[in-house]
Amino acid sequence: MKMFTDVQTVSIDVFDRYESDVRSYIRSFPTVFHRAKDYHLWDVDGTMYIDFFAGAGALNYGHNNEVLKRALLEYLSEDGITHGLDMGTKAKGEFLEAFQQIILEPRGLSYKVMFPGPTGTNSVESALKLARKVTGRSTIISFTNAFHGMTLGSLSVTGNRFKRKGAGIPLSNTFSVPYDSQENGIDGIALLRRMLDDSGSGLDLPAAIIVETVQGEGGINVASLKWLKQLETLCRARDILLILDDVQMGCGRTGPFFSFESAGITPDIVCLSKSISGYGLPMALTLFRPELDVWNPGEHNGTFRGHNPAFVTGTQALKQYWTNQKLTDQTEQHGRTIEGYLSDIVESMPTLRGKVRGRGMAYGMECGVPGLAEEISHAAFERGLIVETSGAQSEVVKLLPPLTIDEVGLKRGLSILADSAKAVAPI
Amino acid sequence: MKMFTDVQTVSIDVFDRYESDVRSYIRSFPTVFHRAKDYHLWDVDGTMYIDFFAGAGALNYGHNNEVLKRALLEYLSEDGITHGLDMGTKAKGEFLEAFQQIILEPRGLSYKVMFPGPTGTNSVESALKLARKVTGRSTIISFTNAFHGMTLGSLSVTGNRFKRKGAGIPLSNTFSVPYDSQENGIDGIALLRRMLDDSGSGLDLPAAIIVETVQGEGGINVASLKWLKQLETLCRARDILLILDDVQMGCGRTGPFFSFESAGITPDIVCLSKSISGYGLPMALTLFRPELDVWNPGEHNGTFRGHNPAFVTGTQALKQYWTNQKLTDQTEQHGRTIEGYLSDIVESMPTLRGKVRGRGMAYGMECGVPGLAEEISHAAFERGLIVETSGAQSEVVKLLPPLTIDEVGLKRGLSILADSAKAVAPI
Amino acid sequence: MKMFTDVQTVSIDVFDRYESDVRSYIRSFPTVFHRAKDYHLWDVDGTMYIDFFAGAGALNYGHNNEVLKRALLEYLSEDGITHGLDMGTKAKGEFLEAFQQIILEPRGLSYKVMFPGPTGTNSVESALKLARKVTGRSTIISFTNAFHGMTLGSLSVTGNRFKRKGAGIPLSNTFSVPYDSQENGIDGIALLRRMLDDSGSGLDLPAAIIVETVQGEGGINVASLKWLKQLETLCRARDILLILDDVQMGCGRTGPFFSFESAGITPDIVCLSKSISGYGLPMALTLFRPELDVWNPGEHNGTFRGHNPAFVTGTQALKQYWTNQKLTDQTEQHGRTIEGYLSDIVESMPTLRGKVRGRGMAYGMECGVPGLAEEISHAAFERGLIVETSGAQSEVVKLLPPLTIDEVGLKRGLSILADSAKAVAPI
Amino acid sequence: MKMFTDVQTVSIDVFDRYESDVRSYIRSFPTVFHRAKDYHLWDVDGTMYIDFFAGAGALNYGHNNEVLKRALLEYLSEDGITHGLDMGTKAKGEFLEAFQQIILEPRGLSYKVMFPGPTGTNSVESALKLARKVTGRSTIISFTNAFHGMTLGSLSVTGNRFKRKGAGIPLSNTFSVPYDSQENGIDGIALLRRMLDDSGSGLDLPAAIIVETVQGEGGINVASLKWLKQLETLCRARDILLILDDVQMGCGRTGPFFSFESAGITPDIVCLSKSISGYGLPMALTLFRPELDVWNPGEHNGTFRGHNPAFVTGTQALKQYWTNQKLTDQTEQHGRTIEGYLSDIVESMPTLRGKVRGRGMAYGMECGVPGLAEEISHAAFERGLIVETSGAQSEVVKLLPPLTIDEVGLKRGLSILADSAKAVAPI
Repeated sequence: MKMFTDVQTVSIDVFDRYESDVRSYIRSFPTVFHRAKDYHLWDVDGTMYIDFFAGAGALNYGHNNEVLKRALLEYLSEDGITHGLDMGTKAKGEFLEAFQQIILEPRGLSYKVMFPGPTGTNSVESALKLARKVTGRSTIISFTNAFHGMTLGSLSVTGNRFKRKGAGIPLSNTFSVPYDSQENGIDGIALLRRMLDDSGSGLDLPAAIIVETVQGEGGINVASLKWLKQLETLCRARDILLILDDVQMGCGRTGPFFSFESAGITPDIVCLSKSISGYGLPMALTLFRPELDVWNPGEHNGTFRGHNPAFVTGTQALKQYWTNQKLTDQTEQHGRTIEGYLSDIVESMPTLRGKVRGRGMAYGMECGVPGLAEEISHAAFERGLIVETSGAQSEVVKLLPPLTIDEVGLKRGLSILADSAKAVAPI
Repeated sequence: MKMFTDVQTVSIDVFDRYESDVRSYIRSFPTVFHRAKDYHLWDVDGTMYIDFFAGAGALNYGHNNEVLKRALLEYLSEDGITHGLDMGTKAKGEFLEAFQQIILEPRGLSYKVMFPGPTGTNSVESALKLARKVTGRSTIISFTNAFHGMTLGSLSVTGNRFKRKGAGIPLSNTFSVPYDSQENGIDGIALLRRMLDDSGSGLDLPAAIIVETVQGEGGINVASLKWLKQLETLCRARDILLILDDVQMGCGRTGPFFSFESAGITPDIVCLSKSISGYGLPMALTLFRPELDVWNPGEHNGTFRGHNPAFVTGTQALKQYWTNQKLTDQTEQHGRTIEGYLSDIVESMPTLRGKVRGRGMAYGMECGVPGLAEEISHAAFERGLIVETSGAQSEVVKLLPPLTIDEVGLKRGLSILADSAKAVAPI
Repeated sequence: MKMFTDVQTVSIDVFDRYESDVRSYIRSFPTVFHRAKDYHLWDVDGTMYIDFFAGAGALNYGHNNEVLKRALLEYLSEDGITHGLDMGTKAKGEFLEAFQQIILEPRGLSYKVMFPGPTGTNSVESALKLARKVTGRSTIISFTNAFHGMTLGSLSVTGNRFKRKGAGIPLSNTFSVPYDSQENGIDGIALLRRMLDDSGSGLDLPAAIIVETVQGEGGINVASLKWLKQLETLCRARDILLILDDVQMGCGRTGPFFSFESAGITPDIVCLSKSISGYGLPMALTLFRPELDVWNPGEHNGTFRGHNPAFVTGTQALKQYWTNQKLTDQTEQHGRTIEGYLSDIVESMPTLRGKVRGRGMAYGMECGVPGLAEEISHAAFERGLIVETSGAQSEVVKLLPPLTIDEVGLKRGLSILADSAKAVAPI
Repeated sequence: MKMFTDVQTVSIDVFDRYESDVRSYIRSFPTVFHRAKDYHLWDVDGTMYIDFFAGAGALNYGHNNEVLKRALLEYLSEDGITHGLDMGTKAKGEFLEAFQQIILEPRGLSYKVMFPGPTGTNSVESALKLARKVTGRSTIISFTNAFHGMTLGSLSVTGNRFKRKGAGIPLSNTFSVPYDSQENGIDGIALLRRMLDDSGSGLDLPAAIIVETVQGEGGINVASLKWLKQLETLCRARDILLILDDVQMGCGRTGPFFSFESAGITPDIVCLSKSISGYGLPMALTLFRPELDVWNPGEHNGTFRGHNPAFVTGTQALKQYWTNQKLTDQTEQHGRTIEGYLSDIVESMPTLRGKVRGRGMAYGMECGVPGLAEEISHAAFERGLIVETSGAQSEVVKLLPPLTIDEVGLKRGLSILADSAKAVAPI
C-alpha cells in the first residue's frame, strides 16, 4: 500500500559511504524512510510499513500526531523561542504547570523537576550524580540486563557486556545483581539483602539502586509488582535511594503514566525521556523528592536542556492524553489483544520454543532458537511490519506499538507477525 | 521597544516552585521569554532584548532563522519522519550528502560521520570511547579550563572544580595540563613533551588529547594557531589521537566552518553540536578518520540520534551559509568591530582592569575586579542586552552574538555593553 | 605458672603514649609479652599463657621452635647473608630446592616460585597483577567475608566494610559474591554461573577468582570440598584463573601442606605466607603455573623479598615436618579433639547459641549473642589462654593453636576455653 | 680475596629452573652469595665483593653488624617473642621508648608511631589511606621518577611506566608533576601552584603530596633544600598534607637521621623502612602528627607488623649510632670523598658524558651514553664491587655504600669503580 509518492532522491548507499559503521537499525530495516503518520511509515519508494517499534518507545502517541503537530506548527510559525537553555520561557513554564497539575498532583507526587539535557542518558547521569551527592556514597546497584544509556556513568549501570566493552576502560562504582526472574533462579533482592546485612560482604553501602519496571532493551523482562514493592521496602529500610528509570516504560507504555504506579511505590528519583515530548523531539526530565534538591545552580547543565518545541508538544500531549483514563484503558485492552495473538503464535508453533511476556503495550516473544527472533523481524519487515528484537542475544521479538494505534492496525500488525513467525519457524 | 504583545500567562514564580535549584541562567536573566527572531528576544511582557549569548553558541544563524524555518515548517507539515533512530531517512541522507559536498570535500577532509545522540556531551563521550578502543589505552589528556560536558566521561575531561565535584565520585583516567596561556606561564605542550619523553614520569601513554581551539566556557581563552599546530605535531610524533571539540567554536563561530582550519591542522576526531542544526534543535556529530571507524554496529547508540527536523535545518544551513565565503568574511569583519569596541571600553575605563581576547565572533572581556563581569552582565540585561559571563570565577564577559547579526544590531549591542560597563565600573 | 622471671622494664603505658590508635590486639590482651616457647607465652611479669592464636596462623610450628631456632642461630652466627633482595644466595637456593623436592614434586605440582615481598598482601598483590596481565582483563571475583590484605589491591578483594572504608577512595575492578554457606542461602558459584552465562549481566568477564578454602579472618567459614571443586570447574570452563589464597590455611593448618589438596584441585596461582618461614619471620611466596610466568624482570619487586633467615628456617621446617605424614595425621587427630570439646561446650551451654565449624586445626565457635565471643576471649585471657575472635562482627571465637602442640596442652587450653564460656554464658 | 671457604652446595641453575622470571638482581650479579660482614659479601666460591649497594639502602650499618648481631642472638637465644602482631611486647616497647628519646624528642618532633607491616610499601599504603581519611579527598600528588612501592596504592604514585603497566588496570586518584630538576625545565611546584590556584584546572584539591628528598630508584635525583621548603610552604598554604617517603633516604643515608632535617621542614606523615631495623630485617614505621591519628583500632593491620627481632636490632642501632653526631659527620665526610672520586672519573673520561649528583652517601653518576651505566656495573662486579644502576633507563650508576664503611674500603670501592668506568668508556 502506498499513500505518499516520492521521487527517490536518496540512495541507501549514502549511508554506507559516509556514515560510521556504528549505525545499526538501518541494517535491520534496509530502506530509506521518508514520511510517517500515526502508526505508519513510508519509505522513499512509497512502500508503507506498520510501526511496532515506535522510536524505541519515543513515539507512544504515534508519528507526527496531528494534535501535537498543530501546536508545534503554530508555535514555530509564530516564532516562539526555540532554544532557551534554562532561561525562563513561556513554553517551559506552561509545561511545568501542566506537568504539575495533570501528572504530579493527581497522583499525590511531590517532585522537583530538573531538565538535565534532552536525552535519557542525560537524565540517568544527573540521577546518579544527585544520588551520590546526597548520600556521600559511591556505589550504585543495578540489575542484570538493565539498559540506562551509553555515556560513561549510564554505561556503568548497563548490563550488556558488548556495550560495556565500548567504554575502553573498566567501569566502576557499580554492582550488578539479578533482576526479578519471576522464575526459579537467584533473586536479586534476596542477594542484596544478604550482601547488605553482612558487613563483611565486600559490598559497600550503596548510594542508590537504579531499576526499570520492565526492561525494554534487556528483553522485555517484567518485574512483578510485588518484587518492585519489596525493592522499595529494601531501599527504605537501608536508607538507599531508589532511582526509577522510566525512560522507556513511562509516559503510559505500561498503562498508567508512570510505570511504577501499578506497584504502589514512590521512587526517590525518576528518569523520564523518550515519549515525554510526545512527538519524538529530544527532551528529558529528572524528578526527585524536594528534600533531595541539593544541587547548586549550574552544577549540572547542558546546551539543549531548554528545547522549547518539545515543551510545547509535551504540554499538548499531557492535555490530550492524560486528563482522563481513556488512553490507559485502551493500552490495557490493546495489551490483552497483543498477549492473545502472541500466545496463539507460541502455542501453535512449538518449534519457536517461544515465551510471551509483557505489561501494558510493551511485549516480548522470546524464541528459544538462536537467531530466530531476528529472522522473524526480517520476515516481518519484508511483509511491511517494523518490529525489533531485544535481549542480550537479540533473542526476543519486541513489540512497542504506538499506544494510540487503532484496533484494526494493531491486529493487522499482529497478523503480519504471525505470518512472519510461520514463515521462519523450524519444521 | 516592543514588537509582539502577549498576554502574560506564565509567572516567573512557576520556576521557583516547580523546577530544581540547579537552574542557572534564569537567575541571570530573570524574566519569562516568549518569542525570538534573529538577534532579538522578547519576553512575555513584550520587552525586547538583543541577544549576544545566542544559545551559548547554538544559534550562530540567529533565532528562528527564516530560511531554515521555511524548510522546517515544510518538512513538518508534510509529515516527514521526525524520529528515526539510526534508520535510513531521506532527511538524514540529504544531510550526509550536503555535509560531504559542502563541508568535507572542499576542505580535503576525509571523515566518517557518526550520529552519537543529539548533544555535545554525547559526541565527546563517543570520541573518548573510540579513542580508547582504537588505541587500547586509558588516559585522555585535557586542558585547564576545558569544558566538554556534564556526563561522567565528558566531566572527567572538564576542568571546572565545582562541576567536577558534582560527579560524587573521583574522576579518573584523565590528566590535565595548562592550556596555551599566550602569556608567561607554564606551557602545557612543553609539559606534555617532558612527561611523555620521561618513561618515569608517572604519566602513562595516553589514548588521546582533547582540545578546544578557543575555550568558550573556560573564559574565551584563545589558543594561538602556532600552539595548535605544535599540539598536532606532538600527537603525530607520539602516536596520540587528537580530538578537537568544536562543539562551541565550530559552525563558523571563529570564521571558517571548523575552528581548526585556521591552524592548518587535521584532528583525528572532531566533535560538533550546538549550531550544526542551525536552528537550535538538538543535534550532534562525531567525525573521525575512516581508519578509526572500528565501531561494531550499535556499540554506541542513543534514542535521539536521528532527530530528522534537525537534519533538515542543518542541511538548509549548510546550503545557505557555507557554499560561499560571505559568512566567514562577515564574521571576521564583525570580529574586528567587537574587538574595537571592547578595546575602547577597556582603555577608557581602566578601573575595570579589563583584558580583551577572542577570535572571529567569540570574544571575552576579562575583568580583574571580582564580581564585576557579573555586574556588567546584570546591567546589560536591564538595558536590553543578553550577555553572559564565563571563566572559572565568572570573571569574563562573554560575547557570542549570532554570526548573522547586522552591523546596526551589533553596534547597538556593543553600545549597551559600553554603557553597562560604565554604569558599574569602580570610580 | 611462671617459668621465666623478668624485671618489668616496659610499662603498657608506653603504647598508649607513643603508638597510633590503630593498634588492636593489645586491647584484647592488655599486657606486655616478653618470651615465648612452643605453645606458651610469658609476659614481663612472668605470667604464662597458652597460645591458641599462634600469630594469626604465622606460628604453625609454635613459638621459637627449637629445631628451627638452632638452624637460625647457626646461620646468623656464621654471618650468613641476611638481606639479599633477589640476588642468588645459598639460603634461598636451598629453600627453592627443598620446596621443589619436599612439597611440589611429591604432589605432582608444577609451579614457578616468586618472592613477592615478605607478607601475605605482597603475595596477593602480585597474584592480582599477574592475573590481570596474563588475561588482559580487569575484574577480580572475590567472596563475602574474604580477607586478603590491607594494601589497595588486596583490600579491594577483602569483604570487611570497615576495613574497606579505610581506603578513603572507592575500591574498584572487583566483584564480590557469597561464599559457600553450606547452609540454605545464595550460593556464590550458582550466582557466578548465572552472571557469566548472561552476556547482559553487567559482570564483565573476570581475570580471576580469588578464594580461601577456609576463611580465617572472616569467621572460620569452611568451604566444602565439593564447592571448591565446582569452583575450579567453573574457572576451567570459563577460562578464568583461580587464585588460592593459602596464606593462613596453608602450611598444614587444615592438615595437608596446601589446604586445597583435600579438594583435589589445582589452582593457577597460590599465595603463601604466614607460616612458610616456620618461625614467625616475614616471608611470602607466590606460586603459579609456568605458562603464566609472563613477568618481565623486576616488573614487581620489593626490598625485603630476600629475607634469608626466613629461608633458612623455612627450609628447616620443610625438612622437619613435611617429609613424612606425621604432622598431618596429628593435625587431623587434634582437630577431632578440638571439635569434640567445642561441641560439648555448645551443647552443654545452649544460651551461647553456639555453632562449631572448622577443618584441621582451624576452628571457630560462632556465638549467636552479640558481644559474647569477645567476652569469652576476654575471660580466657584472664585464665591464661590467648584466643581471638573473628568474623565481621567479631562473633566467632577462633582457635588456631600451634599444629605442634601436644595433647596435654591442647586439652588444657580447651578446658580453659570451656571454663571461660561457662563464666560468661547467659543464664 | 677469600675469607670464608665453602663447599658449593647450590648452583645458580636452581634459580633458572624454579624461580619466576620476575627475578632481577641475580641477572646483574650472577653468582650465589653466601656470607656477608659489614661492607663485604662472599659467594659460595669464596669470592669476596665490596658492597656499594647495601640492600638498596636497607643495610646502612653494613651486613650483620656485630653490635646488632650480639643483641639479636641474645634475644633469639633467650626465646624473646619473635612474632607479636600488635600485641604489647617488651622489645616493641623498648623500641618505642628509644625512638622517642633518641630520635623524636631531640629533634622536637611530635609524631605518633604506627607499625603498618614490615615493608616500605606497607608504610606508603598506610600513609595514603590516612591522608585520604583525614581530608576526605581522593587525589594524591606525586612526582616524576618517584618510587614508592609495588602494591596497588603505592604503585599509583610511582612514576616508572614499565612498573605501572604491571598493575594491569588503570592507576587512578593520583596526579604526577615534575620533580625538582635543579636545571632548566618545568618546575613541579610552580605547576602545582598554577593548577591549585586555578579552580578550573581539572586538578581537584588533593589530600596529600608524597615526596622523596632524594629519589633513589628514580636516578639519585636530588631535590634542593630550598625546593623542599617551598613544597612545605605550598602544602601549608593550601591545607594539603605532606607525606615524606624516607624509606630509602632516612636512617642517616643523607647525613642526619631524617633526610628532611637539612631542609628544615616538618612533614605531616613520614614513611620509614629499609634501614630502620638496622640489620636488614623487615620492618617499617609510619609517623604522623598526633592530630592526624584518626585511625580506628585495626582499621589497617598486617601479620608481620610486630617483627620483634627487628625491634631489638632497631633499638640497638638507635643506641649505637644516633646518640651522638659521629655517624652523621662521617657520612658527610664520606660523601665528599665519593663526590671527589666521581668528579674525577667524569672529568677524566669525558666520553662517559657523565654527571655527578648526590647528598650524604647517596650518589649517582649519570652516563649520557645509553647502556653504559649498566656496563660499568657489570665491569665492577667482575672486579669485585657490587654497584647498581637506577633511573628510568638504568642510566645512573648508583652508589649506596654502608654508612659504616671505613675510609680504606670506601676508597678501594671507588677505585674499582674508576677502573670499571675506564674499562668500558668509549674511546
